[in-house]
Amino acid sequence: DFMNALDEVTPAFGVAKEELEQVVQNGIVHFDSIIDDILRSGQLFVDQVRTSTRTPLVSLLLHGPPGSGKTALAATIARASDYPFMKLVSPDDMVGFSEGQKVAAISKVFADSYKSPLSVIVVDSVERLLDFTPIGPRFSNAVLQTLLVLLSRRPPKGRRLLVIATTSLRPILTDLGLSESFDSEVRVPPVSSLHSLEIVLDEVDLIRDPRERQQTMQMLQQAGFGADADAHGINIGIKKLLTMIEMARQEPDAVGERLVTSLMGLGM
Amino acid sequence: DFMNALDEVTPAFGVAKEELEQVVQNGIVHFDSIIDDILRSGQLFVDQVRTSTRTPLVSLLLHGPPGSGKTALAATIARASDYPFMKLVSPDDMVGFSEGQKVAAISKVFADSYKSPLSVIVVDSVERLLDFTPIGPRFSNAVLQTLLVLLSRRPPKGRRLLVIATTSLRPILTDLGLSESFDSEVRVPPVSSLHSLEIVLDEVDLIRDPRERQQTMQMLQQAGFGADADAHGINIGIKKLLTMIEMARQEPDAVGERLVTSLMGLGM
Amino acid sequence: DFMNALDEVTPAFGVAKEELEQVVQNGIVHFDSIIDDILRSGQLFVDQVRTSTRTPLVSLLLHGPPGSGKTALAATIARASDYPFMKLVSPDDMVGFSEGQKVAAISKVFADSYKSPLSVIVVDSVERLLDFTPIGPRFSNAVLQTLLVLLSRRPPKGRRLLVIATTSLRPILTDLGLSESFDSEVRVPPVSSLHSLEIVLDEVDLIRDPRERQQTMQMLQQAGFGADADAHGINIGIKKLLTMIEMARQEPDAVGERLVTSLMGLGM
Amino acid sequence: DFMNALDEVTPAFGVAKEELEQVVQNGIVHFDSIIDDILRSGQLFVDQVRTSTRTPLVSLLLHGPPGSGKTALAATIARASDYPFMKLVSPDDMVGFSEGQKVAAISKVFADSYKSPLSVIVVDSVERLLDFTPIGPRFSNAVLQTLLVLLSRRPPKGRRLLVIATTSLRPILTDLGLSESFDSEVRVPPVSSLHSLEIVLDEVDLIRDPRERQQTMQMLQQAGFGADADAHGINIGIKKLLTMIEMARQEPDAVGERLVTSLMGLGM
Amino acid sequence: DFMNALDEVTPAFGVAKEELEQVVQNGIVHFDSIIDDILRSGQLFVDQVRTSTRTPLVSLLLHGPPGSGKTALAATIARASDYPFMKLVSPDDMVGFSEGQKVAAISKVFADSYKSPLSVIVVDSVERLLDFTPIGPRFSNAVLQTLLVLLSRRPPKGRRLLVIATTSLRPILTDLGLSESFDSEVRVPPVSSLHSLEIVLDEVDLIRDPRERQQTMQMLQQAGFGADADAHGINIGIKKLLTMIEMARQEPDAVGERLVTSLMGLGM
Amino acid sequence: DFMNALDEVTPAFGVAKEELEQVVQNGIVHFDSIIDDILRSGQLFVDQVRTSTRTPLVSLLLHGPPGSGKTALAATIARASDYPFMKLVSPDDMVGFSEGQKVAAISKVFADSYKSPLSVIVVDSVERLLDFTPIGPRFSNAVLQTLLVLLSRRPPKGRRLLVIATTSLRPILTDLGLSESFDSEVRVPPVSSLHSLEIVLDEVDLIRDPRERQQTMQMLQQAGFGADADAHGINIGIKKLLTMIEMARQEPDAVGERLVTSLMGLGM
Ligand SMILES: Nc1ncnc2c1ncn2[C@@H]1O[C@H](COP(=O)(O)OP(=O)(O)OP(=O)(O)O)[C@@H](O)[C@H]1O
Ligand SMILES: Nc1ncnc2c1ncn2[C@@H]1O[C@H](COP(=O)(O)OP(=O)(O)OP(=O)(O)O)[C@@H](O)[C@H]1O
Ligand SMILES: Nc1ncnc2c1ncn2[C@@H]1O[C@H](COP(=O)(O)OP(=O)(O)OP(=O)(O)O)[C@@H](O)[C@H]1O
Ligand SMILES: Nc1ncnc2c1ncn2[C@@H]1O[C@H](COP(=O)(O)OP(=O)(O)OP(=O)(O)O)[C@@H](O)[C@H]1O
Ligand SMILES: Nc1ncnc2c1ncn2[C@@H]1O[C@H](COP(=O)(O)OP(=O)(O)OP(=O)(O)O)[C@@H](O)[C@H]1O
Ligand SMILES: Nc1ncnc2c1ncn2[C@@H]1O[C@H](COP(=O)(O)OP(=O)(O)OP(=O)(O)O)[C@@H](O)[C@H]1O
Ligand SMILES: [Mg+2]
Ligand SMILES: [Mg+2]
Ligand SMILES: [Mg+2]
Ligand SMILES: [Mg+2]
Ligand SMILES: [Mg+2]
Ligand SMILES: [Mg+2]
Repeated sequence: DFMNALDEVTPAFGVAKEELEQVVQNGIVHFDSIIDDILRSGQLFVDQVRTSTRTPLVSLLLHGPPGSGKTALAATIARASDYPFMKLVSPDDMVGFSEGQKVAAISKVFADSYKSPLSVIVVDSVERLLDFTPIGPRFSNAVLQTLLVLLSRRPPKGRRLLVIATTSLRPILTDLGLSESFDSEVRVPPVSSLHSLEIVLDEVDLIRDPRERQQTMQMLQQAGFGADADAHGINIGIKKLLTMIEMARQEPDAVGERLVTSLMGLGM
Repeated sequence: DFMNALDEVTPAFGVAKEELEQVVQNGIVHFDSIIDDILRSGQLFVDQVRTSTRTPLVSLLLHGPPGSGKTALAATIARASDYPFMKLVSPDDMVGFSEGQKVAAISKVFADSYKSPLSVIVVDSVERLLDFTPIGPRFSNAVLQTLLVLLSRRPPKGRRLLVIATTSLRPILTDLGLSESFDSEVRVPPVSSLHSLEIVLDEVDLIRDPRERQQTMQMLQQAGFGADADAHGINIGIKKLLTMIEMARQEPDAVGERLVTSLMGLGM
Repeated sequence: DFMNALDEVTPAFGVAKEELEQVVQNGIVHFDSIIDDILRSGQLFVDQVRTSTRTPLVSLLLHGPPGSGKTALAATIARASDYPFMKLVSPDDMVGFSEGQKVAAISKVFADSYKSPLSVIVVDSVERLLDFTPIGPRFSNAVLQTLLVLLSRRPPKGRRLLVIATTSLRPILTDLGLSESFDSEVRVPPVSSLHSLEIVLDEVDLIRDPRERQQTMQMLQQAGFGADADAHGINIGIKKLLTMIEMARQEPDAVGERLVTSLMGLGM
Repeated sequence: DFMNALDEVTPAFGVAKEELEQVVQNGIVHFDSIIDDILRSGQLFVDQVRTSTRTPLVSLLLHGPPGSGKTALAATIARASDYPFMKLVSPDDMVGFSEGQKVAAISKVFADSYKSPLSVIVVDSVERLLDFTPIGPRFSNAVLQTLLVLLSRRPPKGRRLLVIATTSLRPILTDLGLSESFDSEVRVPPVSSLHSLEIVLDEVDLIRDPRERQQTMQMLQQAGFGADADAHGINIGIKKLLTMIEMARQEPDAVGERLVTSLMGLGM
Repeated sequence: DFMNALDEVTPAFGVAKEELEQVVQNGIVHFDSIIDDILRSGQLFVDQVRTSTRTPLVSLLLHGPPGSGKTALAATIARASDYPFMKLVSPDDMVGFSEGQKVAAISKVFADSYKSPLSVIVVDSVERLLDFTPIGPRFSNAVLQTLLVLLSRRPPKGRRLLVIATTSLRPILTDLGLSESFDSEVRVPPVSSLHSLEIVLDEVDLIRDPRERQQTMQMLQQAGFGADADAHGINIGIKKLLTMIEMARQEPDAVGERLVTSLMGLGM
Repeated sequence: DFMNALDEVTPAFGVAKEELEQVVQNGIVHFDSIIDDILRSGQLFVDQVRTSTRTPLVSLLLHGPPGSGKTALAATIARASDYPFMKLVSPDDMVGFSEGQKVAAISKVFADSYKSPLSVIVVDSVERLLDFTPIGPRFSNAVLQTLLVLLSRRPPKGRRLLVIATTSLRPILTDLGLSESFDSEVRVPPVSSLHSLEIVLDEVDLIRDPRERQQTMQMLQQAGFGADADAHGINIGIKKLLTMIEMARQEPDAVGERLVTSLMGLGM
């Protein structure tokens, strides 16, 4: 299946497999069936670009709350494509870049991709690439215009390109006229049900004692975890949840309690 | 007729035929009689510039929703003119350009055109040339002023020029005082009637089985497609429609269903 | 008389007669007595600068709706002055200029004029020289300050200068404090009466058949042309009218109808 | 008396007598006793700087409507001082200057003045030096800060300096915190009484025929000239009035009428 | 215990122990148990980074009113970590730096830290690093974007990093989207209870005479010190309190009175 | 006493005694006991910096209306300190400086001060150093950030620094977050009581004739001078008052009258 395919990818020119692996260092926890839906849907786009001659450019936007796992999922889909050109465009590699340098760096990756028959580019954290700040608001119009053009410019004849972008500020992208440039959008949800939380706790093996574990789950339910949004239910991105779990681990005597306290702090 | 004339165009100095062809890669589907009206009206302007001595400069604005086919239609009209100078001014060729470089590139094309007795210039996606963003709003005043002057400056004695511009943000062009510069405007509509949709589906040969096809059309009608705007009718640019059709093709067992789902997603 | 005098102007140092002629390529149609008033009033200023020793600098502003013929009239008055220095300052010659280059170009013309005992400068389309945009608004303060100073700075002893400026955005000039700098203002009107329109149609010989011509006039009257402003009367700049006439000429069978349709389109 | 003293001024190092004379080319018409008051008051400041050891820097602001004669009066006072250093700082000499160049030019004049035991500087048209525009508003903060410092910085030991500045935008100077920097302010009025107007007409010898002259005065009175401000009385700067008189002179048969028409046009 | 551990830290490559000591020159007065809580909580994060493999980057924000001791506490925690790389990023070392220089300086420290297996960076006074001003507001978006990326970028494999930032403008950090980047937040309180104040006075040995001391405490209570916030209670950062105490010391006869007067001045 | 101490100061490296004397050219008139309070309070800070080891940096803000004598008082306190390093940072020495040059000049003085065991810096007219304008408002954020850091950065070990800043725009400094940086604030009042005014008049020996003097005082009282603020009492900075006195002296026959007229003009 899709996830197993990852292990069989063969190295190739223009491939940035390591960068794509590094952002999934904590693996993918399948805490909800929607995670599998997202990966499957990604595979469909990978297939469409590979096979359809009428859509040489397909673009997909993964959006969701901070730390919900967008980058990890985008990288997982890209890595699984096994395309000869796979690249991660990330603000992490552009610290201190001027507007012009950002524009050049982004354009360069697209220009390189046009040399490969099949390419996939992960454009990570679009709001950071745009240097976006809610106060003002301020953002780089140069980067925005570059993305607007690159996301709708047809690759040269015979070349095909899949773009997977991520953002935690989708409404901003809409305000900036950037959402319209995507062929499809997928929402990445936070962990919000008790059941999902339990799957994660099991996976990281946080609380071994069955009674302690049950107590913790009860406290969490009472604290409102698992209630739906209208009832002020708590939810949390998988990334932040994994960090909170590590913090709780620091006080071995009260792991469950500390986790509950941290999660309840989010509700405020 | 007009469309057939395209095949007989002979190559000439200053001609950018290939660029003009590349933007019509998926052809022109005649899904509505208005498409033919637009092409015929374009031909009239081509003729006027060729024959009238009193209007050495004529400018036309094609406007319509994103992906409605403006660029393809503008390029089709220009290519059919058979003028010795035919050129496409496109933001696609200006990624990462500074304001000054954009102004220079645009001016250069107009200056070149003044050397040919008969010229046509497609000024594509004016809002992108202007680096326009709704937040602010921000735009390049230098490019705007350049267009304002170039769209009303008479070519030198003995030279004649047809300018065909496109935009999906016509109200912005009006706010910027740019609409006034055009001698005429033509609206390019999206696909909005069931009949038009059917023509497109036939053209791309999406659903062969007659029963399945009929079922799909019924579902679309029930979903609201073909209802008029007031009744929250759905409409979609031909470009996006063609992409959606390719996506639907990825799931051969449920092509019709998937298309209906995608189109209904637009209504939201 | 004034208009005949144009033919007798003798060439001289610093004279830009050709540029001044080029902007009147379609001649002056005397569609209303006010056209003659404007030309006569211009001649009075030309005479005052030539004769009065107390007013070495006189400045005149021609304002009116887009395409009403401001540039053509300003150039006609200037050309008729027969001054040894006659110059057109036009945004057409400043495409892509930076603020500094515009300031330099404008100042240069004034500096040159100070070397001639008698000079006339046409400062065309002030809003374009200012790079004015209604959104913001944005404009070049450097150019504005330059004009503010040049329009009130006395020429050196023994030199006299007439400045004729044009604008279609007079209220903006007032907001910018620029209107105050002019010694006099003249309004250039659009074509708004049926009678004026008829004079123009005759002059360009659009419809020869008397019956067809009468029918066209009747249709125009019914369409509201000639009604006064309060009654939503239609009016149109002479420049745009001449272009519409050429467009109508493209369909020989329905010249009148097409003109009526175009003109009615303006009322919307 | 003061005015006669002007003729006896002897040339000296650092003196810009010619520039100061050039701006009074049309002389000073004593159309109202307030003109003499202004000149006398100016003389008092000239004397104070010359004699008092406790006020080595005195600054005076002449403000009034456009064309009311501020520059001419400031220059007249300065020229009459007979100081070894007399200088005019005028926007006329700074066309196309950058902010930095303006700051440098202004500072230079003050630095030069510090080398003379007694100096007078006319800082003309402060709003123009500031590149002020009401839209925004925009202005050069660099020039503003320079003036704020120079207008309150004590000259070096043993040096004395009189600064006479002019402006037609006094409220703006107050908003910018610049008014406070002046030791004294004097208002220069426009011509607003019938009697003043008559003195001006006599001085320039406009209408010789006594009957015609009387008729003109009557028409002016009926038109509202001479009525006070509340009754929508008309007033006009002496500079504009002198220009209007020259225009009226162009039509010898109707000099009075044309003047009346022009003046009535101001009321609108 | 934690505080004693400080004395046993051994010097190492990349260590900026002196800088970290210099900002605690007046020691840590334990005026409230919360001070110990903060230090203990800091130690937990130090331990987590040292031991957990799943959280190679942990970030902590110390926030509180001006002068509440944030910098001293952050430095104390960092110094106690005994990590091979300990560094203070402070605006004090960036006076006159351009935006670019600030970005470079900050990035350099993070880049250096990535070379050490264990690192702690104190990012002091984030609002000053951002050049933040409430009027506008204005701030360096380049520095903001740099911090946003650096605070969420994973260190390279095998490297671990603890970031301790301080700010007295936490609400601003939230508005800028920066709060979200921290894994945890700790509030540093001002001195607000009579008991805390007494501990500080004892520590610095301000008033030796027991009666005088009691009188001073009574006056302070009457002045409102120690009342809770709703009752307009007075509170003061430890840094400012220590300075006020020194000022009071200048008038040996009225030390208590002067202190009371100063503290009451704060309530206004 | 304090004032006499000034004469005994011995010259030393880094001392700018002359600059500090020059700004007190008209001496200090002791028109109110508050003037002595301010000087005494300044002496206390001078002593604290000299003696206390816990407050190596003390900063004081003198604020008050324009011309109230802030600069003269700050300079007097600094000069009397007899510190080996005494320096005046004044906008007067920075005419035409860019932001960067201002930042450099200010930082340089602080850096120099760190080389002396005891230093005093007068930071004069902070709003001018900031290039502050109320319209906008506009100001140099670079200078502001520099001051914010320099006013709270501890001098190196063993160095002590007293900063005395002045401003006539204290509310602005508060808005900019700069007030908080000062350890103490002192208000410098204008002359507002009849008695103070009399002391000044005596000091400068304006009116010798006792009867004339009495009449003048009566007129001033009637004009509202000496009434308190609520009753629209008049007040005036000592600097402007001294200038007005010199102006009045120009008309020997009506010295008192002219002074009264000038002072009453302030009330408007
Ligand atoms: N189901 C999952 N989906 C995504 N990531 C997962 C999942 N399970 C575990 N992870 C881990 O959680 C982390 C998700 O972090 P990631 O950086 O992808 O989130 P993000 O949404 O991109 O965050 P940000 O909003 O800060 O950009 C990764 O370390 C990943 O290995
Ligand atoms: N009737 C038609 N009119 C225009 N284009 C058509 C038509 N039928 C099919 N097409 C195809 O649809 C696509 C239209 O895309 P085009 O880029 O011209 O749209 P657009 O309106 O310019 O989009 P955008 O708003 O993004 O600039 C082209 O690939 C073209 O070949
Ligand atoms: N009575 C007339 N007055 C002016 N122009 C006329 C007249 N009759 C015919 N024309 C022709 O009409 C055209 C007027 O164009 P012109 O550029 O002067 O208008 P404009 O008001 O300056 O336009 P814009 O607002 O775009 O600057 C010219 O080609 C001129 O030859
Ligand atoms: N009483 C008068 N006062 C001043 N100027 C006078 C007087 N009588 C005649 N004049 C003439 O009127 C003109 C006044 O022009 P001036 O440039 O001084 O006006 P201004 O107020 O400075 O104008 P602006 O507002 O444009 O700067 C000069 O030519 C001067 O010779
Ligand atoms: N309990 C305490 N916590 C922190 N600092 C203390 C404490 N007791 C005494 N101090 C001393 O108080 C001073 C606190 O100053 P510090 O610069 O850390 O405050 P801050 O909150 O960072 O100030 P700012 O808001 O200006 O950045 C230091 O000199 C420190 O030695
Ligand atoms: N009691 C006094 N206090 C201060 N200055 C005095 C006093 N008596 C006389 N003076 C004189 O008054 C003048 C005060 O001017 P100073 O420049 O110090 O005022 P300022 O408040 O700094 O003005 P500004 O607001 O323009 O900066 C100096 O010339 C000083 O010699
Ligand atoms: Mg991410
Ligand atoms: Mg297009
Ligand atoms: Mg024109
Ligand atoms: Mg003037
Ligand atoms: Mg701090
Ligand atoms: Mg001062």
